Parts: sequence; structure tokens; C-alpha cells
Amino acid sequence: MRVHVINTGTELLLGHVTNTHLSFLGDRLQGRGLRIAKQVSVPDGDAIREALLESAPQADLILVTGGLGPTSDDLTRDIVAELAQAPLEYNDEIQARIEERFRTRNLKITDRIRRQAQVPQGATILWNDWGTAPGLYLHGAPGSGPLAGKHVVLLPGPPRELRPMVDTYFMPLLEVIHPLPVTMTQRIFRIVGLGESAVEDKVGAHLEAIADLELGYCARMGEVDLRLIGPQEVVNNAALYVNEVLDTNIVTDTGESFEEVLVRLLTARGETLASAESCTGGLLANRITNVPGSSAIFLQGFVTYANSAKINSLGVPEQLLLDHGAVSEPVAAAMAEGARAASGSTYALATTGIAGPGGGTPEKPVGLVYIALAQPGFATLVERYVIPLDRETFKYAVTQRAFDLLRKRVVGI
Amino acid sequence: MRVHVINTGTELLLGHVTNTHLSFLGDRLQGRGLRIAKQVSVPDGDAIREALLESAPQADLILVTGGLGPTSDDLTRDIVAELAQAPLEYNDEIQARIEERFRTRNLKITDRIRRQAQVPQGATILWNDWGTAPGLYLHGAPGSGPLAGKHVVLLPGPPRELRPMVDTYFMPLLEVIHPLPVTMTQRIFRIVGLGESAVEDKVGAHLEAIADLELGYCARMGEVDLRLIGPQEVVNNAALYVNEVLDTNIVTDTGESFEEVLVRLLTARGETLASAESCTGGLLANRITNVPGSSAIFLQGFVTYANSAKINSLGVPEQLLLDHGAVSEPVAAAMAEGARAASGSTYALATTGIAGPGGGTPEKPVGLVYIALAQPGFATLVERYVIPLDRETFKYAVTQRAFDLLRKRVVGI
Repeated sequence: MRVHVINTGTELLLGHVTNTHLSFLGDRLQGRGLRIAKQVSVPDGDAIREALLESAPQADLILVTGGLGPTSDDLTRDIVAELAQAPLEYNDEIQARIEERFRTRNLKITDRIRRQAQVPQGATILWNDWGTAPGLYLHGAPGSGPLAGKHVVLLPGPPRELRPMVDTYFMPLLEVIHPLPVTMTQRIFRIVGLGESAVEDKVGAHLEAIADLELGYCARMGEVDLRLIGPQEVVNNAALYVNEVLDTNIVTDTGESFEEVLVRLLTARGETLASAESCTGGLLANRITNVPGSSAIFLQGFVTYANSAKINSLGVPEQLLLDHGAVSEPVAAAMAEGARAASGSTYALATTGIAGPGGGTPEKPVGLVYIALAQPGFATLVERYVIPLDRETFKYAVTQRAFDLLRKRVVGI
Repeated sequence: MRVHVINTGTELLLGHVTNTHLSFLGDRLQGRGLRIAKQVSVPDGDAIREALLESAPQADLILVTGGLGPTSDDLTRDIVAELAQAPLEYNDEIQARIEERFRTRNLKITDRIRRQAQVPQGATILWNDWGTAPGLYLHGAPGSGPLAGKHVVLLPGPPRELRPMVDTYFMPLLEVIHPLPVTMTQRIFRIVGLGESAVEDKVGAHLEAIADLELGYCARMGEVDLRLIGPQEVVNNAALYVNEVLDTNIVTDTGESFEEVLVRLLTARGETLASAESCTGGLLANRITNVPGSSAIFLQGFVTYANSAKINSLGVPEQLLLDHGAVSEPVAAAMAEGARAASGSTYALATTGIAGPGGGTPEKPVGLVYIALAQPGFATLVERYVIPLDRETFKYAVTQRAFDLLRKRVVGI
């Protein structure tokens, strides 16, 4: 089954808005053994028609996102109805549900809202329990039109509506229209401490010689992803080899995020974590607390931008700040130790650095950072890096290195 | 000048990886009065050829991202050289730069790396000062091949290489190949407190009647973006109307983020902020500290997951936690007041809620949250919401509401 995704929305092409649908849909389809062959973003309006006409001969399943809302630039429903030769009809149940939703939220219903109760003749409704516009599924448009015999799924643009709708209503539908067993499997290794070409140097030649194995490399911030795709047994054997060669450089091969790995490791050990962040400004705590269940291991985070905060909340000696400056090895160590003492955690991570763009000096340039890990029974560990990147990337790169410092200490490597 | 973007990379279509290139490139081109007419994502390999052949007749400028690296799945350079009928040649200066980069970083250079020193005959090199593979610009491939006369730009896949390369080397090049003055302008209003259809109800009819004005609506998490595009004077006049009608619901119309607006407002007033986060887990501090210069206004953040942290670091009375629970109005207020007292800030925001998926009860369901704002001379303000969304969306939605609580108080509306 060949799958295309069409993302509609002028905002996607004008900047500012990031398309998160593709990675979500790719993940869900992958779980059913399907891959997206092509994805297209087009503005609202007539370009939707052209994109559908272009994809129809190449694809069996076309997922269209966006353009189902109440405003005048929402045209997906109308265009698909036209191409599928399936006239729009009012649906009383949709209308009733929308009215109920507005009533409970005390919102005034407008005429524009009613457009969302229109359904192309014969389409299946994917209910929207998270917003107003329902999704729609058309299969086998009648006649000889361009969408004849194609599976076409229309999904709402807002991710918080699209995602649960896909999981609740589209995935069960997909089991019906694509009932094949999953024969291909995927394994992704998250690798740290090695560059992309070093990873290929170590494992590439061996893996390339394995029949039916598809290989992929992806250099990400502070990690390289190595992807193996193929029949279950082939991937399992290749994975044994990768595990043996890359060993401690592998953070995980289960698709978990770095922070999920840490929460799982600490939970299993009954250990806890605290953080003291200067330059990362809360990102470290935020990433950890994105993991459900992290409250069991994450006791407390301090975001101590001001020196007075470092002194008062973490007990960093004022003299240390005067002698070495806030961005220094002894202050990083004192921050980590202070966070441990204040929270009573097993481990504490601290970051202090110069995120930029301002604030750098010849001795302490933008990108300089100290990362510290405090732990009972061990001397506090401090690592120094210079990571001269833009502010947000710098923050992320620093948390990656802090996580790896913790990971290695926790698993004892 | 018609612009297409082709993003290559199997990982983009398999899930997990989000394509951030499109929003970045859309923004940069927009600044030069150009719009992306279409964007396509395809896997590594032959699909790149097909995408180029499909775009060539429709576009004047084609931006291709990814596939320039050292690994065996990096084929963009080869395919473009073939389609442009411009044989690959080794470039000594690229080779020397790569070797220098590896030397200073103490990395071993491998044979694979040398592929990145290949340049299609006649192409302009866009130097990569942030990684190894340079970008390439081809204009007017010779002969009558499919790329004849087209502007084709090849950019590296990693965002931290692509972004500075675009700003440093591609944008000046674009001024040469597209020297037209910017005649169209764009204005985006970030609107809070109103739904998408309510926004259109208030301003839609009036704005739709304005000639040469293009309108767009985009519902985002906790805000609606209203986009006006057209000639400078038309947009300016329409913006006056929007400002008058939507008034205090407008956070900004300058393209600033919500956090940038807050940092600017507080900096101008010489006021400061602290945060005490439970359910948002550091996201609030992280968003604020993403803004360059935020250290001038953000004194300190507390991420107090554990009750002991709320008691010890914020001075929340233990009895309050016993009587009302951590997720309650009085605890939210005590957290905000405690953060203010500990940090000496002008304002303090606090969040306490149940992010889920676990931890909900009939009286305190998943999604329940209290947001508090403490400020000298005013009673502490506490708002209660129920936002039953997935964990990360919940965290973001809560910070949006917290930011708006602060914004309204700061500007006195």
C-alpha cells in the first residue's frame, strides 16, 4: 500500500509554524508496517486540488491534514467532495455534537461553524472529541474520477485534535483497510559520543553486506541515530552485532527518548535526581518532567540565573563566585552539591555557561559551559565544553551532555 | 520567482524526526518577498531524482535539504550532478578545510569524509563553518537537461548547519539572483482569549472586503494567529482595524514570541520575574530563558515536584498541603508568594496541577491546574482551569495561560 501525506495550510509555507504531523503519522504508520512514500505541503486553496491530482495516480492511501475548520480559507472538504464526485450533505449528528460542545463551553455558535457539519456523500465520519471539525474517510469514490478506488482520509490541522483522532478512530480503521501482518520491523539505535562517519566506519561494512537489511544514519544534536529496517530475524541479528561493536555508546535501541531512559533507570534503582540550572534555564528539568512518571524520581529543580539565587537557594559561597565567576568549575560543582543537599536527591546535575548571543569574553567565550554531577560517596564530577551554537541549540546540546554524564554514572560505565 | 523546497531523508518519513527546515526557510524567504509554493519530503535514494524532475518544470528556485553527508545513503550531490549534466570534481580547498576541522577536533579523517569535497562542475560553494559538508549552488545547468536554467541550492540536513549557512551565504546570494524590492508585506497577530471562528466573526467580513489583502487564520495551542499579507499600505490600514477591534486580545503583531513580548515588557519597566513550577516542570522557565537577554529580568525558577521541595524551598506551610493537597488554590498562591520572597522578584508565577496520564481522581481530574501570580501591593491572583490534554500539550497550554495572566497584569488590562 503506497501512502502519501498532503499537509495543507498557508502558514506551513510562510515560516513560524512547524509541521509536526509528518513525524507523528510516520511513526503510527510504521507501527503497522507502512511507510510514507512522499509528503507534500501546499498552501490553502486551489493548490490542494493540484496536490491531490498529483498524488492520486501514485498512492493508494492519501492522508490530508488541515483545511477542515470554520474559516473561509478552509477548503479541503469542498475540494475532496468535488474530486470524489461526492456532493456535500449536512449531518445532523455532527451539528448536534458541535452545538453541545459550544453549549458546555458557553461559547456562541456562529454560522461559520455549521460548515463543519458537512460530509461528502458516503464518507465515514472520524469523530472529533477534542475539537469541532470531524475527520472524514472516503474509500473508492464512485465513477471514474481521479480519486476512484483510493483511500482518502481528511484530518484536522491542530495537532491536539489530529493526534488523538488518529489513535482513536483512524488506526482501527487502518486495521480494516490494511489487514496485512507487519512483516518488516525497525530498530533505531541512539548513539552518543561518536560522529556519523565514525559510526559508519565501525559498523557500516558489516551491515551493508547483510541481505534484505536497509540501513540509515541520521546525525542529530548530540547523538547519531542508526536505523535498521528489514525482516524481524535479519534486524535482530544485525542488532546483536551493533550492540557488540558500539556497546556503551548506545543509549537505547527501543525508541525511547534519552530522558525516558534516565527515568526508567533511576526508577528501577529507587534513586532520585535534582537539577541546578543556570545556562540551560529549566530545559533539563523540562525534558525530564516530560516523561510520565518522572515525579517518582525528579525531586526538585533550581533555575538559578542570578548570583543571589545561586547563593541563597543552593548555598554557593559568595567568595567562590567572586574568585572564579559564575561560569567556572568550582561554581558548577557547588551548584550540584547544593541542589543535592537542598533536595535530598541521590544525584544532582548542574549547568553553568554562556548561552549567548551576548555575555562572552576572550577568556570565557559564548558557548563555554561546565556540567557537574554530584553523588554520595564520589567526588563531584565536572566536565567543561565549548559549544558555540545558537542559544536554543546550545541549551539542548548541554542537556544532552548532562544526561550522558548521568547515564554513564548510573549504569557504571 | 516560484520556489519549491525538497526535504530529503528517510528519517523524515519514518516518524520520530520533525522537519524544522520548512518553517525556517519559509521565514527567510518571506523576508525577501518570496513564498514557498510547495514543499516535498522524500526518502533518501532515487526518490530525490523523481522529486527534482517533478519540481523542475514548476519552479524557478529549488532548495534541496539533506543527503550531503559522508554516509552511503547521502546521494543528493550525485543525483543533482547527473541531472544538471555537471560531472563531480574534487575540490582541494574543501578537502583542506575538512582536514583542518578534523585536526583541530582531534578526529580521525576517514575515506568516506572525502566524498564531501566533491563539487558539480561550475557550482558555487556555500561554505560550511558549522560542520563538514558544504552547500552548493547551481544556476543554469548547461544543455537541455531537466535543470537547465533553474536555480538549485543544496543545503545540509542538520539544522545547526543549514540555518547559519542560509543566513551567512545563501541570503546574500539570493539578493543577487532575486534583486527585486520587497513589495508585499506580512503581519501576524497573535491573539489570545478568542477561538478561531470568534476571531473571524469579529474581523472577517470587514477584512475580506479589502482589495489585495490576503487573510489567513491559524489556530495554535492557546492562541490564534491572524495573518495579513498584501501591499504595505493595505496591510497597515487593515492592521489598524484589527488592533482597534481585537485590542487587548492581541499579544503582539511583530512576529515576536509570547516570551519575547514578556521579556521586552519587563525589561522596559525594570521589573523582574521568578517562577515556581510543579506541573509545568521547568517549561515556563525554559521558555522565558530561550529569549536572549532574559537574564536581565528572570531571577530564579523553582521546579518543585516533591512536597518537601515546596515546603523547604518555597516556604509553603506543610499544613496547607495536608489540608488542601498540592493541587489547590491556596498552595498555588503560597508557591508564587514563596518564589517572590526567595528571589526578591517583582512578579512570581506558580503552577500546580495534574499533567497526567496518571494521578487523577474524581475530585481532581487529570488536566486540573491552578496558576498563581504574586505581585507587591496586590492580592495574589489564582486562576483555575481544567485542560485535559496529553502531558506535553498540557504543560505548554498552562504556560500560555500563565504568560497571559502576567501580560495582562503588567500592561494593566
